[in-house]
Amino acid sequence: MSKARLEAFSDGVLAVAITLLVLDLHLAPGNGTSLLAQVAAAWPSFAAYVVSFLVIGVIWVNHHSVLRLVVTVDRLLLFWNLILLMFVTAIPFTTATLSAALADGSAADVRVAAVLYGGVSTGFAVAFTLLFGRVTLIEVREGRLDPRERRGALRRFGAGTVFYPLLTIIGIVYAPAMLVGFTALSVYYLFNQTGAAEA
Amino acid sequence: MSKARLEAFSDGVLAVAITLLVLDLHLAPGNGTSLLAQVAAAWPSFAAYVVSFLVIGVIWVNHHSVLRLVVTVDRLLLFWNLILLMFVTAIPFTTATLSAALADGSAADVRVAAVLYGGVSTGFAVAFTLLFGRVTLIEVREGRLDPRERRGALRRFGAGTVFYPLLTIIGIVYAPAMLVGFTALSVYYLFNQTGAAEA
Amino acid sequence: MSKARLEAFSDGVLAVAITLLVLDLHLAPGNGTSLLAQVAAAWPSFAAYVVSFLVIGVIWVNHHSVLRLVVTVDRLLLFWNLILLMFVTAIPFTTATLSAALADGSAADVRVAAVLYGGVSTGFAVAFTLLFGRVTLIEVREGRLDPRERRGALRRFGAGTVFYPLLTIIGIVYAPAMLVGFTALSVYYLFNQTGAAEA
Amino acid sequence: MSKARLEAFSDGVLAVAITLLVLDLHLAPGNGTSLLAQVAAAWPSFAAYVVSFLVIGVIWVNHHSVLRLVVTVDRLLLFWNLILLMFVTAIPFTTATLSAALADGSAADVRVAAVLYGGVSTGFAVAFTLLFGRVTLIEVREGRLDPRERRGALRRFGAGTVFYPLLTIIGIVYAPAMLVGFTALSVYYLFNQTGAAEA
Repeated sequence: MSKARLEAFSDGVLAVAITLLVLDLHLAPGNGTSLLAQVAAAWPSFAAYVVSFLVIGVIWVNHHSVLRLVVTVDRLLLFWNLILLMFVTAIPFTTATLSAALADGSAADVRVAAVLYGGVSTGFAVAFTLLFGRVTLIEVREGRLDPRERRGALRRFGAGTVFYPLLTIIGIVYAPAMLVGFTALSVYYLFNQTGAAEA
Repeated sequence: MSKARLEAFSDGVLAVAITLLVLDLHLAPGNGTSLLAQVAAAWPSFAAYVVSFLVIGVIWVNHHSVLRLVVTVDRLLLFWNLILLMFVTAIPFTTATLSAALADGSAADVRVAAVLYGGVSTGFAVAFTLLFGRVTLIEVREGRLDPRERRGALRRFGAGTVFYPLLTIIGIVYAPAMLVGFTALSVYYLFNQTGAAEA
Repeated sequence: MSKARLEAFSDGVLAVAITLLVLDLHLAPGNGTSLLAQVAAAWPSFAAYVVSFLVIGVIWVNHHSVLRLVVTVDRLLLFWNLILLMFVTAIPFTTATLSAALADGSAADVRVAAVLYGGVSTGFAVAFTLLFGRVTLIEVREGRLDPRERRGALRRFGAGTVFYPLLTIIGIVYAPAMLVGFTALSVYYLFNQTGAAEA
Repeated sequence: MSKARLEAFSDGVLAVAITLLVLDLHLAPGNGTSLLAQVAAAWPSFAAYVVSFLVIGVIWVNHHSVLRLVVTVDRLLLFWNLILLMFVTAIPFTTATLSAALADGSAADVRVAAVLYGGVSTGFAVAFTLLFGRVTLIEVREGRLDPRERRGALRRFGAGTVFYPLLTIIGIVYAPAMLVGFTALSVYYLFNQTGAAEA
């Protein structure tokens, strides 16, 4: 398996997933409500679109940082990458559910939608850490990385995964705060290095 | 026809098809049923999403193994590749039909949906074997593969195609067992070599 | 403008357009009609899916043949390529309209849908010929092609465009025959060279 | 971050966004209205499809011109590129809203839809200028561009951004004129150089 085709397929999936977010944006002029009122009522869709676009965009940036380290592609690495993509591809669904719950759902619905959104995010964070663990294990085996450096990098990379359950808990209390938290976390991870830089 | 552009187009189609699976996931907060009850009722959608994601993901992995062998691209090779992609692209449709039948359909509907799902899967397995046969025939003609080795590799590769009709028959009896079978088959083919490794 | 990125973008658009065809396939188990009856009634969708998949697949194959000739990318070449992609991207729409008209429309609706389908096909054939004309004109200017050979290749390439209005007229009389014609034309163009081979 | 993967991801997003425009085209044969009458009533969808296809197509052409200058990819460059893609990906939504408003909405709805369409266009124009500013700033720092030449190129590139608010104002008065303006601007930018050629 060549690294080039692994990157091409992953880029393709991430590009389609990030673009499908737009399908959750839709207004219906001429349905009896003025379009201006519809725009105002659709704020959760717009907010969720921006947040999820940043989340997937930053996954793409960090996916590149991790794959930069890859020399040998093995089947387990492919498996974790596939699981990661499976969670990322679900983001347009959790985004649509959350924005619909914020617009039309009960308080209990919003809590369920926040758990779905945060749960899928935790899922991709865990899959990302398992992918990173596999990539760096191959590096250690091939003598390109010191085992102790790997432990440090893995600890730092994996540390990110604790934020997602925390944001999920915040989302159960107050979902808009969770969205602000995801935005802040994404911008942080866009401009700061994950453990990938050390490995 | 360059192999690079054949891979780029195939990767693109597979990446879009795998991502379109998410369009079958949708909940409607605020429609009178609690979101939690909707999540519980939608279990066939979630299960079918995971299974079909693995199925298409493993097709991508094995597609790469087969194309790795290609040096010369001819028109018949392109034709079988196109037929393979046509069946793979139909998977989001058979997935959506099966999960809707499991959620809302009669027992007869579930059987029809299982035959559709299994039939399209059998279709891509047959197309894959024809593609592999063409690729290895060109190898033999160009002196890169021994005809006897080709027969062995083709027999081993094609053996996979008998599992799909078998899983379809299982699906007619009990559809969830078919989904478990597809998962097991996909994980097996992700970690084990098909005949492509010998050719 | 590099040729590599022109190919990557065109491959991306063609891969998405061919995959979006699947969105026109949908059945609704549990809506009161048995799924088997729905499958039988949806035959125009399945037929149109196969035909349009072949049509776009063959456009991709021949698009590659034409771009193989390109050394210098200029703005007019980009423009004709964009117009070609605009017509190809509309195929999922004309496909869905035609299959819906065959399933549910009046005889007049089927005629209108056939004109739409054939008209968009004529549009991409004309755009393809204009693209081929531009590509070969640049070849002549850069001394890589004899003007007389260009005229012959252009005549042969452009000859294909007369089939599309003819098929449209057949479609006005009897739409299924048009679909058979498109299949035959696609398979012919998949296995036979267009004028691109001479240029 | 390699420039190749930045281009691949951006090409992917732009290719999906331009192709999703087709999802706004849909007719419903057999719903009681003749298909011919439906085609006539759907003119805003067809017009908006053509205009937005050209708009995204030209963004792709000019995106390439800007990325051609890139040698070093930094995080801020990635950030502006992501914001640019976020606005471009929203174009299928603003296109669908505008065409629906023109077909079914009140005069006030059309004005709101024109502001949405023009606003998102202004958004991508501003993000494009910020991306261009970042790209050329890195060029200056790495000694490949004179600061004075950068100012000239940036002024010329940024000048384009004033047209989008102007077209938005025209759209508030008469939306079809705005669509004509976007077409003219796109064709102009397809055939003429932006400031990118100087940098």
